Formats: sequence, structure tokens, C-alpha cells
Amino acid sequence: MEFSKDELDFFLRKYQEFLKIPSVSATGEGINEAASWLKEFMKELGINAEIVKTKGHPVVYGKADNGGNKTLLVYNHYDVQPVDPLNGWKYPPFSATISNGYIFARGASDNKGTLIARLLAFSKYKGKLNFNFVFEGEEEIGSINLGEFIESRKEELSKSSAVIMEGAGLDTKERPMIVLGVKGLVYVQITVKTGERDVHSSVAPVIKNPVWELIKILNEIYDGNKVKIKGFYDNVKITREVEELLDKIDLDVEEYKKSLGVYSLNFEDSKELVSALYLSPSCNIDGIIAGYVGQGSKTIAPSHAMVKMDFRLVPDQNPKKIYEELERIVKSHNGEIIPMGLEKPVRTDLNTAVVKAMVSSANKAYSKDPIILPNAAGTQPMGLFYDLGIREIVSAIGVGTPSSNAHAPNENVKLENFYKAIEHSLYFYEDYESNNYM
Amino acid sequence: MEFSKDELDFFLRKYQEFLKIPSVSATGEGINEAASWLKEFMKELGINAEIVKTKGHPVVYGKADNGGNKTLLVYNHYDVQPVDPLNGWKYPPFSATISNGYIFARGASDNKGTLIARLLAFSKYKGKLNFNFVFEGEEEIGSINLGEFIESRKEELSKSSAVIMEGAGLDTKERPMIVLGVKGLVYVQITVKTGERDVHSSVAPVIKNPVWELIKILNEIYDGNKVKIKGFYDNVKITREVEELLDKIDLDVEEYKKSLGVYSLNFEDSKELVSALYLSPSCNIDGIIAGYVGQGSKTIAPSHAMVKMDFRLVPDQNPKKIYEELERIVKSHNGEIIPMGLEKPVRTDLNTAVVKAMVSSANKAYSKDPIILPNAAGTQPMGLFYDLGIREIVSAIGVGTPSSNAHAPNENVKLENFYKAIEHSLYFYEDYESNNYM
Repeated sequence: MEFSKDELDFFLRKYQEFLKIPSVSATGEGINEAASWLKEFMKELGINAEIVKTKGHPVVYGKADNGGNKTLLVYNHYDVQPVDPLNGWKYPPFSATISNGYIFARGASDNKGTLIARLLAFSKYKGKLNFNFVFEGEEEIGSINLGEFIESRKEELSKSSAVIMEGAGLDTKERPMIVLGVKGLVYVQITVKTGERDVHSSVAPVIKNPVWELIKILNEIYDGNKVKIKGFYDNVKITREVEELLDKIDLDVEEYKKSLGVYSLNFEDSKELVSALYLSPSCNIDGIIAGYVGQGSKTIAPSHAMVKMDFRLVPDQNPKKIYEELERIVKSHNGEIIPMGLEKPVRTDLNTAVVKAMVSSANKAYSKDPIILPNAAGTQPMGLFYDLGIREIVSAIGVGTPSSNAHAPNENVKLENFYKAIEHSLYFYEDYESNNYM
Repeated sequence: MEFSKDELDFFLRKYQEFLKIPSVSATGEGINEAASWLKEFMKELGINAEIVKTKGHPVVYGKADNGGNKTLLVYNHYDVQPVDPLNGWKYPPFSATISNGYIFARGASDNKGTLIARLLAFSKYKGKLNFNFVFEGEEEIGSINLGEFIESRKEELSKSSAVIMEGAGLDTKERPMIVLGVKGLVYVQITVKTGERDVHSSVAPVIKNPVWELIKILNEIYDGNKVKIKGFYDNVKITREVEELLDKIDLDVEEYKKSLGVYSLNFEDSKELVSALYLSPSCNIDGIIAGYVGQGSKTIAPSHAMVKMDFRLVPDQNPKKIYEELERIVKSHNGEIIPMGLEKPVRTDLNTAVVKAMVSSANKAYSKDPIILPNAAGTQPMGLFYDLGIREIVSAIGVGTPSSNAHAPNENVKLENFYKAIEHSLYFYEDYESNNYM
């Protein structure tokens, strides 16, 4: 596919225009301006676009009916992470400066670059595929009101035959990534309170220390190796097909360890490491606090102790059931539990139109085989779309690479990868609509 | 024993003079003035007194040679707790206001009242007992430099035949308390560090979470009921004689629970509760921290976790051996341990001159049997004197009761109890010197 000089200029101009509008969801800076710009641009492209207010930042929602039988739901977010530390940036973060074939800006990769590439591909698309564009403004602060928006447009949205999520981008070798799903999540806060105030630790022999009580709970949840919650592993589904996908991933264990800044990993073998990262559920402690943690010594027994923990789930674990078991354990020890996030794991079948078209279009755009992951190691709000009854959901097509510095200073995208993402999107729209795979 | 009106006036005048000088060790307010006043007053009483500088607040040290065979070491502290919250006080905390037979002042009970009572008794003493007075200025901030002082005067101090500590005061029924010892202490800070920085919790399946690692350590130390450290209970010594002492203590379990503000106690039976409080060692968590503990959810695996914990020890547990076992466990899990206090448990034998004289003099002064405790539930720097080779150490004679509000606003002492403490001291000096017990 060859774009003309004029087309490329237009693509870049729109990319820069969009990046120059700050849209920091954490502070609200520029959010409304960015949403307005986006709505206007979508209208220019013939999309029936509107700004949908939520309790937080608005969703920019657009529909385009091209008269076909299939509707693609395109999900992205127009909000970005804060820019600090500002002095880490070579160019002002909203200057969209171009240097040596790269564009530098907050949001260049995550996620404005991918969003705009998909819209620019739409501007060149001549086929019959229908579109629902859902561009939210709160992804970087936890998609707080996305569920409420989806619920309010449930009927229209549930007619979508497939969803493409925010975008997986390219790997270190610039191979396009196709991610078939996400891990689920159970995030809880557990508190044990044993008294009204801290007491002198000389009474330790006769009172209950809330940290020891909390550790009893934690010991019932996890043995340091395996989760002990009843039925936790029962529905973990690992097929041969999925394992084979991971065989293609090569990961340098030493490099990976270095990139995380950790002193050791649970696996020395690359295959085992990759398998655990993508296919194993986990039980993580995010934070814990009780009592005196300042300088020196203070001899008290605290009155309460609190832990925050998250479980990453894989298909077909059920977050609700796991939460209920957790609740049972915590309450049996007179603790309190607060759910702070329950998300379903999702994994789209390899043998679906959306995956076939994604593979086919990736090959056309990049002349390389894509890397297919059974799911992300993390969680995205895929479950919200799954709950609409849609069973073809993937995260793919993106402008970024692992060195794009998402969430960090000097976020950047190679312009060539931006144009490739437009190309990839366009091939995908065509292949998905026509069922015509290479 | 009857004191004249003039004598009583003199006692009270000196008590008030002393209380009117602030001596807050936490801030240093008035410390030097209080030390100077004390030295001058001791000199007036014919004591060879000096101010001994330390790295912190000075010790006021005095010797009185009356030509006898025995030397009594009298330990007290002239420093006091801060006065806040100031608006909780009925009278200014350094006004030493007298109201309805009570004196109100910070330090009235803890510990200036007892200190001055012992000196005033000395002013009336005509016998041959020799004295070493050690009045420190840092008790309320952890007796930081007391060990250094004792070391510097080791030769003189180790000639003392007995030590009376800060003073146990009276119980709720105004019976004099004699406390034969203290629990020991091992206070440690344990840290586990697994990486250079927090990482996203999506990598939880492959990395080590420092909180789970710390919990492995804690599980090797304590099973929620018993300490698992090798040899921990081997030297716990509970004699029938000691158990019988506790039989005399009646403690209302419900009242006690209420006073601590805790929701439950490990014992419902008063006898079991008292036994555990005084005779059981304990393993307490003072504080724990790791990762994100703010509002809402943040999905990270922390880079490090820290716990502070204390063990209260009973005779004849050895803090050094226990610390060494702890160190072995912590290091086997790649953790770091810092000792923040190792103190020996001490328990003076019932069949000693100091105890016999204390019981005899208590009976004379109060016309009541004293309550004898095998040791305090807490820790005082008794071990420092024990290390001098002295085997007769008790905490007894004091002006306060449980309602004296030590460390709180409106600290107070009933004047009658102040005069009784002078009387008790004087009888004790006489009985101890003469071996003439009632």
C-alpha cells in the first residue's frame, strides 16, 4: 500500500494537532479541548460523533454505518498520563516535536497515536464495514466510568461483531503483536481491627495483635507458592494451542530481570518464565501497613492492620466466586474486606474472523508474521465488552514499541510505525469485512 | 512514724520547688536547670553530688558514705514526659498546684515525686547505710546514655549491695507494690528487599514479592500461638513460689479489657490472664509497611517490606541467643535484621535482704501487706545494674497510683501518698541496713 505525499502530510498534521492538546486525566488538563477536537475531526470524516458526558471525563462516541453486515467496535482512549518529571523531557511534552524520524510527545504512543491512526485509516476506507468508535477519557485513571457509558449504550454496542482494544503495538523486533485477551483481576483491601487504640507492647501476651491476625488470613489465602483459596485453580484452562503460541516468544531472562530491576526471578528458563507470565494466575500484595514504622523503636501493639492485594486471573477463573471465598476466609477471622476491582479474564479463540483478519492484515502491512499472545500479562477493560456478549475481542494494531517510553519522559513513536499502523488498520478493516484472508 | 508540721512543710516546699522546674527530655526544656537544682539540694543534704555529662542529658550522681557495710544504689530519673495536650490540664503543668489534698504537675508521680521522697527520707536517716544516687535525665527517651554512664562508674557502682529502681507505687487499693524484676527485650527491625523499584503487579507470577518473603520469615518465627525460634522456651523459669505471688493479684478481666480498649483478650480467666501477663514471653509486631497504602487501588509489587517486632523475655531467657537465632532465620531468606534493643530479663529472689526489708518496711509504713510481682510486664533498664553483678534489685517505693495519670494531662499525687513514700523509704533504709525485719 502506498500513500501519496499529500496523504502522509495530512496524517502527520492531524497526529501533531491532536498531540498538541494536553489531555491529562489525572488533573483534567485539556480533557474537554481534546474531546471537542476529536469529535469535530470525526465529524469531518463523516462519523456520527458525539461527546457523551459521564460522572468524570467524557467519552467521545461515534457511529459510521457503511451498510455492511458486520460492525467493528474500536476502543481507544484520548487521555494521557501526567508528564512529570518535566525536566526529564528533551522537548516540551505537548510540542509534538519531530526529530530524526521520531515524534516526541506525551500520548504519541499511549494512546493518541494508535487512536488517530485508526481514524486516519477509516478516512481511506471504502468498504461496507460499520463502526462504533468508543474513545474514553479515563483509561489512565482506571476507566472509572466506562462501565456506566457502556451500560447506557448497551443495545447499540452489543450489536458489534468484534472489538479491537487500545492496541498492542510492536515487539522489540518490531513484529506486530496480537493479544487475544486479558487477565482478570480481583483487587481487595483487607483490614483487621483488634481495638480502639494502640496499646503498650508489654500487654502482648494477653491481647490479639492485628498483624498476626492478618497473617493468619494471608496464610489461609497463599502458602508462599500456591493460592489456597478453595477452587482457585479449578477453571484454569491451558490448551495446547495456547502453549504453542508462547513457543514463538523469545525472552532473554537476564535482560528481563534487569529491565524490572529485581534481584531474582522465580524461573531461570525462558519458556517457563513466559508461560508463568501469561498463563499463571497470581496472588500479589500491593501494600501493607500497621503500627509504628518511623525511625527507631516504639513498643506498641497496633489497633489495626491493613493489606491491599490483587489476584490476576486467567480463563476461565471466576472473579466473583474467588471474591466470595476470600470474603469467607476474612470474615472467619473477624476481618473486613472491601472489593476494589473485579474483572473477568478474557481470551478470544484463535479460530475467529477477528484473529484471522488481524493475522492476515499484519502480514500484509509488515511483511512479517505477527506475534500472538493468548492474553496480556495485565488487565484492560475487555471484560466490559465481553459482558455485552461479544466473543471476538483482540488488542492489536498499535504505533508503539517497548522503547516508546509510555508513561515516562520522552514518549516517542517512529513515524514509519505510525504510517504502518494506518496501513495495518486499513488492511484489517478490509479483510475483516470481506472474510478474505491472505 | 510521725513527722512534725515543720518537717511536712519542708517536704512539700522541696517537692513543689522541684516540680516547678520543667525537665522535658524529649525537647530538653529545663533539663539543665533541674539537674543543677537537684545537685545543689543533694549537696545541702550532705551528699557528694556531681553533674556527669553524657552524649545526651546529664546524670546527677551522688555518693553518701555513712560508714556501714552495705551500699544502696538508688535509681530514679528527673526527666519527664512532654505535657501535650496542654489544653487537657486543669492547672498549668509546672505550677505544682495543690487542690483537695492532691498535687498536680507533670512529674508529680513519674518520677520526680518518688525521687524527692527518697532524698527527703535520706535527710532524716541516721543509720550507717551508704548510698549511691543515680538520677538520670533520659528515661523517658529510652535511657540512651545510661549504659555509658554506668560503664564509666562501674567500679564504684558495682560495690552496691542492692538497687531500688524507679518505684512501683501503689495498686488500685493503695497497697504498696514490690516488683522483683523486669521482662527482657529483643527489639528488631527486619527488612526484605527484592528489587530496586516497585514493579507493575502484572509481573507477579515471575517475581518475588517482598511481603510474601517477609511473611515466610514471620511464619518461621511465630505460628500465631507459639514462638518457633529454636530454644526460645528452653530457659523459661516458673517456680511455684512465683506462681503463688500471682495468686494474690485480683484483676477484673472485663475492666482490664475496657481499660486497654481491645475487643478481646486471649484469656477469660483472671488467673490465666495474670499468669500470661507476668510470666509468659511474647512475640509482638510493632509495625509493618510495604508498597502502596493510600486511598483506592494501585497494582504494584513493592520493592521492599519492613517489620518492627519485639520479644518480651522472662528469666532466664537469653536475649543475645534469641537474637542470633532470629538473625539466622532472617539471613536464610536474604533479609536484613537490625537489633534495636537487647535487654536481659531480671528477677530478684524472694529470699534476699532487699526483698525482706522492702516487705517489712512496707508493712510498717502502710500497715498493709504489699503486693509482690515476680517482674513487671514491661522492661526497665534493670539489666544494666544486673550486669554489674548486683543480684538484689527491686522496683518499689513510689508515690503514684494507677490514677496518677503518668504520661497524661493532670498528672497528680495524693499528698498523703507522698508523705507515706518518705516514711516507707526511711523504714526501708533502716531495715535493710540492720537486717531487722518485722
